[in-house]
Amino acid sequence: MKLPSAVMEQAVNAFAQLPGIGKKTALRLVLHLMKQDPKSIIGFSESVTRLSDSIHYCSRCNNVADGPLCSICNQRSRNHQLICVVENLRDLLAIENTQQYNGSYHILGGVISPVDGIGPDALAIDQLLKRLQEEDIHEIVLALNPTIEGDTTAFYISGQINKNNIQVKLSSIARGISFGGELEYTDEITLARSLATRLPYNQDK
Amino acid sequence: MKLPSAVMEQAVNAFAQLPGIGKKTALRLVLHLMKQDPKSIIGFSESVTRLSDSIHYCSRCNNVADGPLCSICNQRSRNHQLICVVENLRDLLAIENTQQYNGSYHILGGVISPVDGIGPDALAIDQLLKRLQEEDIHEIVLALNPTIEGDTTAFYISGQINKNNIQVKLSSIARGISFGGELEYTDEITLARSLATRLPYNQDK
Repeated sequence: MKLPSAVMEQAVNAFAQLPGIGKKTALRLVLHLMKQDPKSIIGFSESVTRLSDSIHYCSRCNNVADGPLCSICNQRSRNHQLICVVENLRDLLAIENTQQYNGSYHILGGVISPVDGIGPDALAIDQLLKRLQEEDIHEIVLALNPTIEGDTTAFYISGQINKNNIQVKLSSIARGISFGGELEYTDEITLARSLATRLPYNQDK
Repeated sequence: MKLPSAVMEQAVNAFAQLPGIGKKTALRLVLHLMKQDPKSIIGFSESVTRLSDSIHYCSRCNNVADGPLCSICNQRSRNHQLICVVENLRDLLAIENTQQYNGSYHILGGVISPVDGIGPDALAIDQLLKRLQEEDIHEIVLALNPTIEGDTTAFYISGQINKNNIQVKLSSIARGISFGGELEYTDEITLARSLATRLPYNQDK
């Protein structure tokens, strides 16, 4: 689509580079912004600019923060002897949204994936081991995606904990049939695994 | 959803104000931007800022322009004796996309809508009449939406042309069954109208 203005064309191209936004949606967004008063357009672009210079990361858990520590690490009412290890911020937010977890987190920044050239050194695993040695941690919950990369990373972390003789309870989030899922349509691996890791009845509420 | 950073929260809220973008999509876009290098984030926000101060409107047809006249009015190869009257920029772009129209345009900036408090004075109708008197125009095509407001506006424009004794051919885009549409599912008004405005066979290619 040929647009009548170069300024508009640039803005449409900028929006179209965002995930899930095509040229048509980008044009719709730009036309919407053009109808706003200049003040609110500048407000929008300033809030984007701030993403480039005002985003900090928590020195303890790598979560997004406004200061040196994130709002979760700063919260006294949380159980800081419990660490949930996640791949990225999105997984952290997903767990936070359940409102059922009251411990702290540790964001790895990815998972071990030789195909993509990501080794253990590229992740915040050393930082996690340092936390285990310096802080008083009772349990680590590994909440990694059930993929080969996620399993490799979990295996590597458990190996490092043993190697460094760190005394900590290591657990992993349960895998099984989704709530509301049907046995008939569940894949074989999940079903086999949920049979193998079966729980005493009434224990899981 | 509670976000760990106020800067992120502001950016998510800014994106969520755009049409068709909810909080979840906004978060996805912000997380995507946060992964980019600062230079491309600033590039994005600058292209948005420019929408507030670098967008001009064509003094002749109200189209978006980079200079005093838009790229369509500047194009010599176009037939400037033919004006297509449209409601807004989106309609202009829709017609341009057909690649079948080679005349110039006139954007009204809306349609007469007493319910919304929009009278003829709020639209670029006087500007259109001035163009008709000053330029050498042979034909006007009214390409307004087939709504009560669109019809009212078309009626008003035709009345003004008669009142000012302007000699110009006035036409309207054809209304009827869409290409690929089925008679069975066409609404009664459209079908009745396409019967009333029937054309000699072979005339419409």
